[in-house]
Amino acid sequence: MLWSGWGDPAKAAGLPEPVLTLLREVLGVREPAGPPATFGEVRLNAAALSPLVLSDLGEAVGAEHVRFDDDARIRHTRGKSTPDLLRMRAGDGSDAPDAVLLPGSHHEVLEVLRVCARHRVAVVPFGGGTSVVGGLVASRDGFAGVVALDLARLDRLLSVDAESMVAGLEPGLRAPQAERLLAGHGLTLGHFPQSYEYATLGGFAAARSSGQASAGYGRFDDMVVGVTVATPRGAMEFGRAPRSAAGPDLRHLVLGSEGAFGVITSLRLRVREAPAVKVYEGWRFPSFAAGTAALRRLVQAGPAPTVLRLSDETETAVGLAKPGELGELDGLQSGGGCLAVVGYEGDAGDVAYRRERADGILSEMGGVPLGPEPGEAWARGRFGAPYLRDALLSAGAVVETVETACFWSGIPRLYDAVRQALAATLTSGPGYAPLVMCHVSHVYGTGASLYFTVVAAQIGDPVEQWATAKAAVSEAIGLAGGTISHHHGVGTDHREAFAAEIGELGVDILRAVKERLDPAGILNPGVLIR
Amino acid sequence: MLWSGWGDPAKAAGLPEPVLTLLREVLGVREPAGPPATFGEVRLNAAALSPLVLSDLGEAVGAEHVRFDDDARIRHTRGKSTPDLLRMRAGDGSDAPDAVLLPGSHHEVLEVLRVCARHRVAVVPFGGGTSVVGGLVASRDGFAGVVALDLARLDRLLSVDAESMVAGLEPGLRAPQAERLLAGHGLTLGHFPQSYEYATLGGFAAARSSGQASAGYGRFDDMVVGVTVATPRGAMEFGRAPRSAAGPDLRHLVLGSEGAFGVITSLRLRVREAPAVKVYEGWRFPSFAAGTAALRRLVQAGPAPTVLRLSDETETAVGLAKPGELGELDGLQSGGGCLAVVGYEGDAGDVAYRRERADGILSEMGGVPLGPEPGEAWARGRFGAPYLRDALLSAGAVVETVETACFWSGIPRLYDAVRQALAATLTSGPGYAPLVMCHVSHVYGTGASLYFTVVAAQIGDPVEQWATAKAAVSEAIGLAGGTISHHHGVGTDHREAFAAEIGELGVDILRAVKERLDPAGILNPGVLIR
Repeated sequence: MLWSGWGDPAKAAGLPEPVLTLLREVLGVREPAGPPATFGEVRLNAAALSPLVLSDLGEAVGAEHVRFDDDARIRHTRGKSTPDLLRMRAGDGSDAPDAVLLPGSHHEVLEVLRVCARHRVAVVPFGGGTSVVGGLVASRDGFAGVVALDLARLDRLLSVDAESMVAGLEPGLRAPQAERLLAGHGLTLGHFPQSYEYATLGGFAAARSSGQASAGYGRFDDMVVGVTVATPRGAMEFGRAPRSAAGPDLRHLVLGSEGAFGVITSLRLRVREAPAVKVYEGWRFPSFAAGTAALRRLVQAGPAPTVLRLSDETETAVGLAKPGELGELDGLQSGGGCLAVVGYEGDAGDVAYRRERADGILSEMGGVPLGPEPGEAWARGRFGAPYLRDALLSAGAVVETVETACFWSGIPRLYDAVRQALAATLTSGPGYAPLVMCHVSHVYGTGASLYFTVVAAQIGDPVEQWATAKAAVSEAIGLAGGTISHHHGVGTDHREAFAAEIGELGVDILRAVKERLDPAGILNPGVLIR
Repeated sequence: MLWSGWGDPAKAAGLPEPVLTLLREVLGVREPAGPPATFGEVRLNAAALSPLVLSDLGEAVGAEHVRFDDDARIRHTRGKSTPDLLRMRAGDGSDAPDAVLLPGSHHEVLEVLRVCARHRVAVVPFGGGTSVVGGLVASRDGFAGVVALDLARLDRLLSVDAESMVAGLEPGLRAPQAERLLAGHGLTLGHFPQSYEYATLGGFAAARSSGQASAGYGRFDDMVVGVTVATPRGAMEFGRAPRSAAGPDLRHLVLGSEGAFGVITSLRLRVREAPAVKVYEGWRFPSFAAGTAALRRLVQAGPAPTVLRLSDETETAVGLAKPGELGELDGLQSGGGCLAVVGYEGDAGDVAYRRERADGILSEMGGVPLGPEPGEAWARGRFGAPYLRDALLSAGAVVETVETACFWSGIPRLYDAVRQALAATLTSGPGYAPLVMCHVSHVYGTGASLYFTVVAAQIGDPVEQWATAKAAVSEAIGLAGGTISHHHGVGTDHREAFAAEIGELGVDILRAVKERLDPAGILNPGVLIR
């Protein structure tokens, strides 16, 4: 993974001339003053851990699995939000951990937590490092240092129960590794978020990830039937049955806890048969409102397709629904409206039935079928957008995503509120409004999520510039009744908005749980709650 | 509701001669020595609350809504487990609350909790009073008294959002009332547990109820998209969106909390269109194992039917799958095997498709279609079993239900373990083994629940007799890897088994949450956790 951007440097996206023209002429983007910092130019603080602490940590995980070289420290600094990337591009390595630990087992994780509690060392659990909400930056206040706990060595498929369709998997597995291991048994998780190529199973669980095929396979938290957690006070294990009436469902307290309560050391996940058939198609709707109504009708009538997304007029026009082929900007010439991608995965009979039923509803609701091409283009480019961001940042744009969810009746208000907040704070000069694109990315019977991408010209310090916009948009989401995150999580960036969302008593509950499991407060301090 | 048994006394079931013969000859049941206590014979302790407390409570809810007459106290004593009924039949009213409060609003509930915290009065939230796990018996230790907080006056449909398919409802609504109010909008919840005719929405949420149509409509906890809770420290409200990545899902901490953290004062529930078509059919399988495999295959392949149940050989033979027509004992003459009830609710097209697909799988898996008669008989008698229990208790039998769940691969072991524990502890003499019947009552992709009914001759004190059996069966469930409850809850009866299931740290988390929300510990003390 590129230390200052996304993914495999060999796959870096260039920006074709029509896009560069759009940036210059429509958004007023100007080339940045200088190039980004090189790896060697990143400024790091001296590693703070004492030889005693390092020795104790070496005993816990083996000395060769305690790393404090610059390479390891820089590659475990922050996550992949736009401000994270901007800081790295500016050579700011000030949030680097003092050491990176690579435990090899649940037992070693428990040991690390004991050592760190004893020495008051903050611990940042680290999976794929793809957080876009500041989930990997621990507060140093009052701590002897900060370590990143990289779970990469916990990468085994532990068990396959084909009868129950449950697989035991370790948290350090990246999603493609996990899919390859499961494919050997004819199985799949069906979890394909945009971070798919780099993110890990533990991260999906800790941050309540949701994938692009969630309409069919469910969210990641739906897949977790059992979870084992290492805490400074020992291990916990939840999930004896698919569902239970034995008290509150404590799995749901671990899911979304973002490392603040403990470290997930294994997962029991519901798996599905690898689908025999995959079909992705495009549909055009005259407007975002018409398309939204169609998606709602479709998911409420059921059975839902596996993939269901709808780009608004702007995103359709720019062609961002197919980021792999953005350069063609074909949306701009295609006659307007909104593009929906509708996908089906499963056995032939069920796909045929769901498709026939969906076709009827989508047509009735004003949709026009566009055939497989737009769907397949989406599928080819589905993990490509983060590469595009790197290219846009290099070109002098500020670009970031914002996502939220609410009940169906609140969608128009939420949509307007976010767009207005972004326009109000990112208009970079007379005539230079930001480009705000949106799609419905996940649908439920009772509501949906909205995923916004905004592009504007960098003005002044782009970190400050985005901080102002982010504050405005977070407030707007709260006022419009949306949740501060549908699938990115809380981290440090959403902490105050999250506190407003669950209220004082809600925060107090989480604090009580944290104090009980982590009395020294070493686990991801400042993430999730203060 | 009958004070010492179930439901409407006018609907009391008699036992036909063939059943009485079975009880006498197969189980060794003998007529009890004397008749059960009459209402007037119930022994109550003197109500313990001081005039000051009563006056403060009267200020909170209005003096006319503070009741301490014998009638109110007896009708709010314990729930409807077999030991609960046996104690009432023995005239033991020792667990009666000192007063019954009937608040009329969320605000009045908050006031009651403040008053009770100030005076150290234990509060037992009371919905339909149908708990079968001792969820309505608070510990008096260290308290000035115990009040039942009856939510019957919180019985409004607050809102219908037909676009989002979400309805706002108050917790004191009994299920049939709620269905009638929703039917006025063409909607349904689709939640039909055996307690349907008396249980309330608040109780369903607080105890994580699951209904007989859960395969199609989901469990009650799946329906709760938002919840408001009154606690001694103020109100909490969770649920801004269908799903969220904003931290742990705190709805799941309220669901299943059984009044130990707070009182649910309103719910936002997912609703569905009232189905146009309802079809219930019978299928015969050669064995419980074959039938279980068929159900598993059906739910894993999807789409699932709306109702999916499978009686084992004994339950099929006795005909308990159709409790309304038990007297006919037709199962006994019908050639053995296991009866499955498969039901479909929805629009005509979807019912036809799901039925066609299910028919194919069930046939392929060895099922023989029996047509609509067994399904319709089940539907007619579906809420009748609790009446039957009263008649059996009167006849001198001890009869109770036990339910659990686990993953599919664990089902055979769990099934054997429960049967063995019941047989070992309830065999009442040479040749008089108990009658143990079982059905799969709820299915998931990864597992299922098992629901047992046991009938044996009363020997000695039947309360003691059942306590011994219950302890053995709870231990057996734990050892076999099942959850101590799939849909009845924890109450006081399952508290120790629940603690073993979630472990010391799990209990510690719940205790931390309780201490934070309810510092005086007045809420349902002794229920859920100690």
